[in-house]
Amino acid sequence: MIPHELLEALHAVVGDAGLVRDASRRTPYECDGLAYERCVPDVVLLPASTEEVSRCLALCHAHGVPVVPRGAGTGLTGGATPVPGGVLLGTGRMRRVLEVNAADRFARVQAGLVNVDLTRACAHEGLFYAPDPSSQAACSLGGNVANNSGGPHCFKYGNTTRHILGLVVVLPDGEVLDLSGPEVDPEGYDLVGLFTGSEGMFGVATEITVALTPSPEVTETLLGIFPSLDATCDAVSAIIAAGLEPSALEILDKLTIAAVEASVFAAGYPADAEAVLLIEVEGAPVECRETSDAILAILERNGVREVRRATDELQRKKLWAGRKGAYGAMGRVAPDLYVSDVVVPRTKLRELVRATTDLCVAKGLRICNVFHAGDGNLHPNISYDRRDADEVRRVIEAGDEMAALCVAAGGTLSGEHGIGIEKRAQMELYFSPVDLALMHAVRDAWDPAERMNPGKLLPIRACMETRTRPVPAPAEERA
Amino acid sequence: MIPHELLEALHAVVGDAGLVRDASRRTPYECDGLAYERCVPDVVLLPASTEEVSRCLALCHAHGVPVVPRGAGTGLTGGATPVPGGVLLGTGRMRRVLEVNAADRFARVQAGLVNVDLTRACAHEGLFYAPDPSSQAACSLGGNVANNSGGPHCFKYGNTTRHILGLVVVLPDGEVLDLSGPEVDPEGYDLVGLFTGSEGMFGVATEITVALTPSPEVTETLLGIFPSLDATCDAVSAIIAAGLEPSALEILDKLTIAAVEASVFAAGYPADAEAVLLIEVEGAPVECRETSDAILAILERNGVREVRRATDELQRKKLWAGRKGAYGAMGRVAPDLYVSDVVVPRTKLRELVRATTDLCVAKGLRICNVFHAGDGNLHPNISYDRRDADEVRRVIEAGDEMAALCVAAGGTLSGEHGIGIEKRAQMELYFSPVDLALMHAVRDAWDPAERMNPGKLLPIRACMETRTRPVPAPAEERA
Repeated sequence: MIPHELLEALHAVVGDAGLVRDASRRTPYECDGLAYERCVPDVVLLPASTEEVSRCLALCHAHGVPVVPRGAGTGLTGGATPVPGGVLLGTGRMRRVLEVNAADRFARVQAGLVNVDLTRACAHEGLFYAPDPSSQAACSLGGNVANNSGGPHCFKYGNTTRHILGLVVVLPDGEVLDLSGPEVDPEGYDLVGLFTGSEGMFGVATEITVALTPSPEVTETLLGIFPSLDATCDAVSAIIAAGLEPSALEILDKLTIAAVEASVFAAGYPADAEAVLLIEVEGAPVECRETSDAILAILERNGVREVRRATDELQRKKLWAGRKGAYGAMGRVAPDLYVSDVVVPRTKLRELVRATTDLCVAKGLRICNVFHAGDGNLHPNISYDRRDADEVRRVIEAGDEMAALCVAAGGTLSGEHGIGIEKRAQMELYFSPVDLALMHAVRDAWDPAERMNPGKLLPIRACMETRTRPVPAPAEERA
Repeated sequence: MIPHELLEALHAVVGDAGLVRDASRRTPYECDGLAYERCVPDVVLLPASTEEVSRCLALCHAHGVPVVPRGAGTGLTGGATPVPGGVLLGTGRMRRVLEVNAADRFARVQAGLVNVDLTRACAHEGLFYAPDPSSQAACSLGGNVANNSGGPHCFKYGNTTRHILGLVVVLPDGEVLDLSGPEVDPEGYDLVGLFTGSEGMFGVATEITVALTPSPEVTETLLGIFPSLDATCDAVSAIIAAGLEPSALEILDKLTIAAVEASVFAAGYPADAEAVLLIEVEGAPVECRETSDAILAILERNGVREVRRATDELQRKKLWAGRKGAYGAMGRVAPDLYVSDVVVPRTKLRELVRATTDLCVAKGLRICNVFHAGDGNLHPNISYDRRDADEVRRVIEAGDEMAALCVAAGGTLSGEHGIGIEKRAQMELYFSPVDLALMHAVRDAWDPAERMNPGKLLPIRACMETRTRPVPAPAEERA
C-alpha cells in the first residue's frame, strides 16, 4: 500500500493528469509483453518533465517506496512488470522532440517519444534514427535505452547503445544526472553506455540525445523463397561469410507465413514455401546493384526457388508487410504469444533453429520462427493461452531449455529484449558468481537501497549466496 | 618501497623474464607520452598469461600495494605514469593471437598484442581491425581498450568501444572475470562497455575479443591543397552537412606540412600550402567513384587549389606518409611534444581551430595542428623542451585553457586519448559533483581500496568535497 501522505504529495507534483488511481485505468499497466506475469500497480504516475520525475523520485525515496519505470510496455521479458507496494512511473506524457541538429547529426528528445516519431521528425533533413524494433510504431526511446533494443536494421547499424550520445537521468533519490552530451567518445567512465541496457534499475532517463544517420540514397528489398528452412539458414551463413553487408537479413518460417497470409497483413508470400528470406540493401545506386547481384548469386547456389526484387517504395512495403505484421498475425493462432530471444553463432544457424523448434514440438507447443538471421538472433515464438496452466508451464520450460541450449552452443541469453523477470534465473547459466557479484556492486553504486525496478535482471542476492566481493567501507573510514 | 617478501613471491610467479628490478631497465617505464610527468617505478612486472596476472594482483592485493597497468606506453595523458611505492604491470609479453574466426568475424587476442599485428593476422581472410590510432604500429590493444582509442578511420567505423565484443579481466584482488563473449548485445549490465575507457582503474584486461570488419573492395585517397586553414575547415563542415561518409577526413596545417616536408616522412605536400585535407573513401568501386566526385565538387566550391587523387596502394601510401609521420617529424622542432585532444561541434571547426591556435601563439608557444576533422577532434600540438620550466608552465596553462574553451563552445575534454593525469582536474569543468560522485561509486564497485592506477581520471576525492551520494551499507545490514 502506498501511504496516503505520499499519494497527496505526488498529486501536488503531477496533478490530476499525472496520477492514475482509478482501478480500471490502472489495469492496463499490470504487465508488459510477458503476459503470464501480472500485478496491478497501486498507483501509476505519469510525470511530464525531468523536474516532475525528480520530485516524484525524491518523494518515493523519502518513503522507501519501490519504483518501476515503464516506457510503452512493449517489452517482452517483464522488465516493466509492477511490484506489489510500488509505484509505476510511465513516460507516456514526455513525448516531445526538443532539438534536431542536422549539421551535427543529433537529436535531443524526451524519453517517452515513440521510436518511429523520431524518424518522422528528421526525415525532411535526409536523416533517420537507425534502430527499428519491430514494435517501433509503439515503443518508446526510453524503453529502447532500458533494453538496448535491436531491430531488423541493427544488423547493419548496431543496437541502441551505438546511437545514444547522451542522457539526462534522474537518480533513485531524485538527483538529476546530466550526461546529455552529445559526445563522440565520452570522457570519464562511460556512464551513458552503462545506463543503456540497465533495464530501469539505475534511475529514470528523461531526456535522450541520439545520433542521427544519413538516409540511404536508395534501398532495395529482395525476397527469397526457399524449399527448406535449412537452405535458408545456409544462405544467410554464406552471405555473412562472403563479407557482404546488407542492412537486414530476416527469416520467416512456414508457420509464420501461413499465419501472415491468413491475416490482414497478407504479403503474397507463397503458401507452400518452407521459408522466406527478406533482404534489404542500402546505399548508392550502383553499390546496391552490385551487392544485390552478389547476394542473388548466393541465393541461387543455395537452391532458392524464386526471388522477388523491389526497388520502389510501394513494392518494398508490400514485401515487408509480412515481417512487420508477423506478430500481429499470430494473434489469430492463440490469445498469447511468448517470444523467445536468444543468440547463436551465425555458423550454427541451421542446427539451432532446428533444435529449438524440435524441443518445442516435443512439448506439444505451437512454435514458429521469425528472426534476425544476420545477427544470429533467433526468435522462436510460441503461441499459447495463459488460462491453460499446463501450457504455461510447458512454455516456461521450453524458454529455459532453449536458452540453455543456445548458451551451450556458444550463444547468449538475449539479443535485444533484455533479461527482465523471464531470464533472471538463467543469468547464472551464462555469468559466474564473480560476474554477478560485480553487477550487484555496480547496481549498489547507483541504487544502494535497491528500490528501482527491484527483482529484475539480476538473480536475487539472497538466492545467490555468491557475494564474494568485499563491500566498500564508507569513504571516511578509508581516507 | 615494495616489501622484499612481496618481490620474492612475485618472482616465483613470473620468473626472471617477468620481473624487472635493474634500475637502468626500469627507467624506460618512467612515463608514457605525457613526458613532463615522470616517476621511475620500483619494480616492473611483465606477466605472460591471465593466470600470472591473477596471481600477481592477488599478491599485491594482500600487501596493499598499488598497481599501474601499462600497454605500450604510447598514451598521451599520463594514464600509465607510475606511482611511488607501486608496481608497474606491463602486458608486453602477452602478444599472442589466440583465435581468428572469419565466419563469425571476430578474433580473440592477448591484451599486449600490437594493434597493427591484429590486422596482419586476419588480412588473408579479407578482414581487418578498424580502429587505427596514429600509433598503431606500437600501441597495444589493451591500451586501446583502456583509453577507448580512436584513429583516422574511426570517423567511419567508430572508436574502440564499438569493436570490443568480450574481455577477460583480472580484478584488483586477483579474481578473474570472464566476459569473453563474443556477444552482439551483452545481456546484464554492460560491464564490457563500462570497462572500455576506464583507464586501468577497474583491473587488468588480459584477453580481448574484437569484432573484425570486412576489408573494403577499393580505397581511394584524395589530398586537397588549400590556400587557407579556414577554407579547409569549411570544406569539412560542408562534406558532413552533405551527408557524405568518407572513412577519414584529416587536416594538416602549414607548420605541420613544413615539419613533415623537412623530415624523412616527406610526402611531397607543397611547402606554400596553408593546409591540406586528406580524405579517404572506401567501398565498392562505383560507390567510391560517386562519393569522391561529390566530395571533389565540395572541395572546388570551397576554393581548393589543387587535388591529388590516388587509387593504387603506392600512391595512397605516399599521400598518407605525411599524416602518419607527422608526430615523428615534430621531433625536429623541439625535443618534446604536447598533444592536446579536444572535441568541438563540427559546425564550429573553423572558429575553434583559430581560437586554440591564437591562444598558444599569444603564450609564445610553437603550435601546429594535425587532426581528425571529420569527428571535430582537434589536436593542437605544442613543441616544447621539458627542461625549460617556464615553457612547461605555459604548455600546461595552454592545455587547460584550450580544454575550457572547447567545453564552453559545446565540445568535450577528450576525443580519444583519455583523461589520465593531465585532464583530471578539468573533469570538474565538464561533470557536475553528482556525476563525479557516481563515477567514484562505480569505481568503488570494482576497486573499493582504490589501488588500481590511483590518481588517474577522477579528481581526487579529498579535493572534491562532493561525495553527496549515500555510501551503501554492507549487504547483511540491508537484507
